[in-house]
Amino acid sequence: MKIEDFILKSEGSWKSMRSSHILTFQKFEEIHSLIDIKLLSHQEQAVQNLIESMPPQSGNLLTPFHMKWEAESDWEQSSHKESSSGSCLLIPISKSPNEGVFIKSNGYAECIPSISQYQLSKDGTIELTTRYEKTIAQEKIWFASKNLRCRASLIKIAESSGILQTSYASEIRQLNKSEE
Amino acid sequence: MKIEDFILKSEGSWKSMRSSHILTFQKFEEIHSLIDIKLLSHQEQAVQNLIESMPPQSGNLLTPFHMKWEAESDWEQSSHKESSSGSCLLIPISKSPNEGVFIKSNGYAECIPSISQYQLSKDGTIELTTRYEKTIAQEKIWFASKNLRCRASLIKIAESSGILQTSYASEIRQLNKSEE
Repeated sequence: MKIEDFILKSEGSWKSMRSSHILTFQKFEEIHSLIDIKLLSHQEQAVQNLIESMPPQSGNLLTPFHMKWEAESDWEQSSHKESSSGSCLLIPISKSPNEGVFIKSNGYAECIPSISQYQLSKDGTIELTTRYEKTIAQEKIWFASKNLRCRASLIKIAESSGILQTSYASEIRQLNKSEE
Repeated sequence: MKIEDFILKSEGSWKSMRSSHILTFQKFEEIHSLIDIKLLSHQEQAVQNLIESMPPQSGNLLTPFHMKWEAESDWEQSSHKESSSGSCLLIPISKSPNEGVFIKSNGYAECIPSISQYQLSKDGTIELTTRYEKTIAQEKIWFASKNLRCRASLIKIAESSGILQTSYASEIRQLNKSEE
């Protein structure tokens, strides 16, 4: 699989179940969410604006995409569910066939524009590493089947490498009536 | 990393947080457990007995090990916690530097002796595939750090390849007072 194939396969609507493991406190958080991934053209103004706002990156510009999500979290220590939503623009740039960067308008661990390094392994797993101001996020994303995407991630403290939490998501593609 | 290193690094006591995602019903299960992994000698009678009871496997016999666990599950649909425990003997046999089999006295998806195929990838992830009578289990296991082992698995129906559930565990090594 090539990185461009991975991006094309990711387009669509996904129903996600995500579990976070807060390691120090041995607490679980459960999150149901809907994720929508839409491919964009290079010409979109938002794509151009994001590229211009970040340090220049050499390499081949691949298909940019937009991700938006609506989440409902069931946090073990709280009696009520919490809703949240957000969106992010991602621009992949390949530096070699299996390596490159993603420019992101929002980070995962910290809500700031960021640049993630990616590597695509032989078995089709993307590994993303994002260095934020205080934390480093690492994610592995792979397709268990055409319609099930898995995502395992962890957040560690940049200074000490201490791991704060891990999380894992099972993302099921939502098919249109005509595709079922 | 070599497969033998992976096994040696796995020895010890681990505190595990595991989340299962029951995909069809969109339900979570949360499991806390203690796992104990102990290396064994080839000469142990139990090792010899298990090898003799299974179809012969060519390859190099690596270090066998014993895993035992005590688990407490918090199942979303039940108001009480459920305890369980078990143990398993595992005998790794390498067929090439990065491939081989594990003979197991108990399976993960079905409680019967089984043979799992393993592959060790360049980034140090072991992938295990076990074909049972009605289901196939796939597991990825990797070290996020020396003291944090991650395990992502899924169970699918052998006949249709439909995926029933995924699960993910964060396993933290329990250090002796002298090692802290």
